[in-house]
Amino acid sequence: MNALNIAEYAQTLGVQARQASAAMARASAATKNQALRALARLLREQTGPLQADNAKDIARAEAAGLSAPMVDRLKLTPKVLDTVALGCEQLAAMPDLIGEISGMQQQPSGIRVGQMRVPLGVFAMIFESRPNVTIEAASLSIKSGNACILRGGSEAIESNKALARLVQQALEEAGLPADAVQLVQTTDREAVGHLIAMPEHVDVVIPRGGKGLIERISREAKVPVIKHLDGNCHVYVDDPCDIAMAVTVADNAKTQKYSPCNAAEGLLVSRGVAAEFLPKIGAVYAAKGVEMRCDAEAAAILAGVAGAQLVPATEQDWSEEYLAPVIAVKVVGGLDEAIAHINRYGSHHTDAILTRDHVHAQRFLREVDSASVMVNTSTRFADGFEYGLGAEIGISTDKFHARGPVGLLGLTSLKYVVLGNGETRH
Amino acid sequence: MNALNIAEYAQTLGVQARQASAAMARASAATKNQALRALARLLREQTGPLQADNAKDIARAEAAGLSAPMVDRLKLTPKVLDTVALGCEQLAAMPDLIGEISGMQQQPSGIRVGQMRVPLGVFAMIFESRPNVTIEAASLSIKSGNACILRGGSEAIESNKALARLVQQALEEAGLPADAVQLVQTTDREAVGHLIAMPEHVDVVIPRGGKGLIERISREAKVPVIKHLDGNCHVYVDDPCDIAMAVTVADNAKTQKYSPCNAAEGLLVSRGVAAEFLPKIGAVYAAKGVEMRCDAEAAAILAGVAGAQLVPATEQDWSEEYLAPVIAVKVVGGLDEAIAHINRYGSHHTDAILTRDHVHAQRFLREVDSASVMVNTSTRFADGFEYGLGAEIGISTDKFHARGPVGLLGLTSLKYVVLGNGETRH
Repeated sequence: MNALNIAEYAQTLGVQARQASAAMARASAATKNQALRALARLLREQTGPLQADNAKDIARAEAAGLSAPMVDRLKLTPKVLDTVALGCEQLAAMPDLIGEISGMQQQPSGIRVGQMRVPLGVFAMIFESRPNVTIEAASLSIKSGNACILRGGSEAIESNKALARLVQQALEEAGLPADAVQLVQTTDREAVGHLIAMPEHVDVVIPRGGKGLIERISREAKVPVIKHLDGNCHVYVDDPCDIAMAVTVADNAKTQKYSPCNAAEGLLVSRGVAAEFLPKIGAVYAAKGVEMRCDAEAAAILAGVAGAQLVPATEQDWSEEYLAPVIAVKVVGGLDEAIAHINRYGSHHTDAILTRDHVHAQRFLREVDSASVMVNTSTRFADGFEYGLGAEIGISTDKFHARGPVGLLGLTSLKYVVLGNGETRH
Repeated sequence: MNALNIAEYAQTLGVQARQASAAMARASAATKNQALRALARLLREQTGPLQADNAKDIARAEAAGLSAPMVDRLKLTPKVLDTVALGCEQLAAMPDLIGEISGMQQQPSGIRVGQMRVPLGVFAMIFESRPNVTIEAASLSIKSGNACILRGGSEAIESNKALARLVQQALEEAGLPADAVQLVQTTDREAVGHLIAMPEHVDVVIPRGGKGLIERISREAKVPVIKHLDGNCHVYVDDPCDIAMAVTVADNAKTQKYSPCNAAEGLLVSRGVAAEFLPKIGAVYAAKGVEMRCDAEAAAILAGVAGAQLVPATEQDWSEEYLAPVIAVKVVGGLDEAIAHINRYGSHHTDAILTRDHVHAQRFLREVDSASVMVNTSTRFADGFEYGLGAEIGISTDKFHARGPVGLLGLTSLKYVVLGNGETRH
């Protein structure tokens, strides 16, 4: 397509999505659940054909010399397809949020005022790599009564097209408009620029991918963005605490996986427990090959740990999201210094305190300005599924609208419902 | 100030606000309420000096030839000051939202997950004309535990400075940082451009004023905006309905005041009741000098009404926000056409159905995509005070974050609170 055609194409997608969104907002819970169950069935029935289309993407990726982990992320194995099908069925089994009326109260004038939960309308999702995100986004969109426009990565275009066809088939089986879920059929990057600048057709943009993508979209969008930037998460080991538990949790938060945004990147240790705690966690990290970027005090204590990879921390280390077997380690005077450090250098994503002190726990929860604040558990739990949201459309590092893991609720809004009996205003 | 100084000044305000916001987020309900009551006391004690400063603005306005209604809006009379003082006391008496934890539930992993209500952080409010908005914004900011930067109109600068001094005095009396409420001390328009482009210091911008101001800020802001654009509100008179009640409500919705955004600008009448209803409301509007812009069918029915000012409606009339004694009138086939018309031409602000039909009422509430949907009452009720929100920081015509009248809740966010007992992720 040329530039003019792409602008027109984006407009067409927008107009169609807006039109479909009215039907989706009206649809009954039963109808939306029927579409979700049909989609699950089609995903399982069509595993063979889906894998054939997926093979084209994989062949192209391998020919282009993509790394093995990148190629792996593209693969639609029977297991991956069964997992997303199961996700659709789980969504179908969840209660419907749309139409719920809450807080209906009579006011002095006699009118009764409450709020009704409604879909946001139309969202656009821009994502990279993994094609199963197509199904996750489509199913959340259907359940929440929205319409959506999906723009996947060019490396997964054939897989995404095949998946989107099944989604539209499922929608039509249930009597819903196929345009409720539209996949952008071109890989031209121009299309993204148009999608994020049509406030008349698109209510919110959700980018999922690398920091570069998210920063570009945040900068250029003319509509609200649910964005997920850095995860510089901390574990603070307080005095007093259960040292054995602290070792287990600090180990899990750093080493269970290195790449997720909710993995710990900073370890703060209260001076009173540092001499006991640091050699123990140091030995664990040393055994797993985790490099420790230490302040002078932590380095002195860790110096005796066999095999420890110790590097002096620079100012830059306190702000770093490593996503790798590296962790910044610092001894602090106590709770006040820990909170100040986290609020200054953290990314307001997820931070945990490990403590026995009730007052410290309460202050940490209240005063640490992060989307998720935790006591005595691993930062790795910051996740829509683990939080019981059923599914996750993304994680928000903003405070506006939705903060932290965003599930179905984040795709809805509240409108006021006012019931009267002929009241007038004086 | 020159351009460089203004940029630095805006930065300083931002840094100070961000710093103060941490103390405000931590502050107890008792402390915040103490500041609000001190402010109410000071407003009453200092009525004389406040009026002296206010007189300078009024003299300048009169010398500049501002219209009498514009000059009136500037005036800080004892009655206006007592009303805002009362507003502060009412806020002090309201429950504190901050710190409330909701939905705490155990998950399969053993962790318990809930959400804590927290302040947004820092908001900037850009407003025109009426200086009492300074106190309304400051008091809502204090109660909700936020810090704010207020930028009032240049015509009220002396009044706003005097009011802001009292706010800072009240904050300090309660042991809170004076920087929690800062008034921009320059009337240079450059300052606004900086305030709305500092995402590191300002979390949300709330413009209040004319459409030009709001459009400019929405276009240029680098942070989320709670914006209030047009109010093209409708009254739909359904078949069947209580005709006498419909006349009373349609009268109130249009004529109780012409300038507010929640005044009705469009009247849709179901064909089955048009012959009975239209002559009655037509006589009321004729008596009050309200011009009716009619489609052909409505015009034919209204032709016999003595003194009726009838003008043929153009396509443009269906989208117009008159804010004047003018209303667009159209006969429709029934509910479906009414809903389609409102969703197409309306501004998604406030729309009412007047009906006896339960199913029609339910469908109207569900399918009309507006911030407030009403049954059998006047659109003029769309207001924070009338909705029981205690006060109103603005009305949002967006769906994201807050929709409709925005009270204290709209200045808050939810963070996740996770309580564990050493759980780790597998």
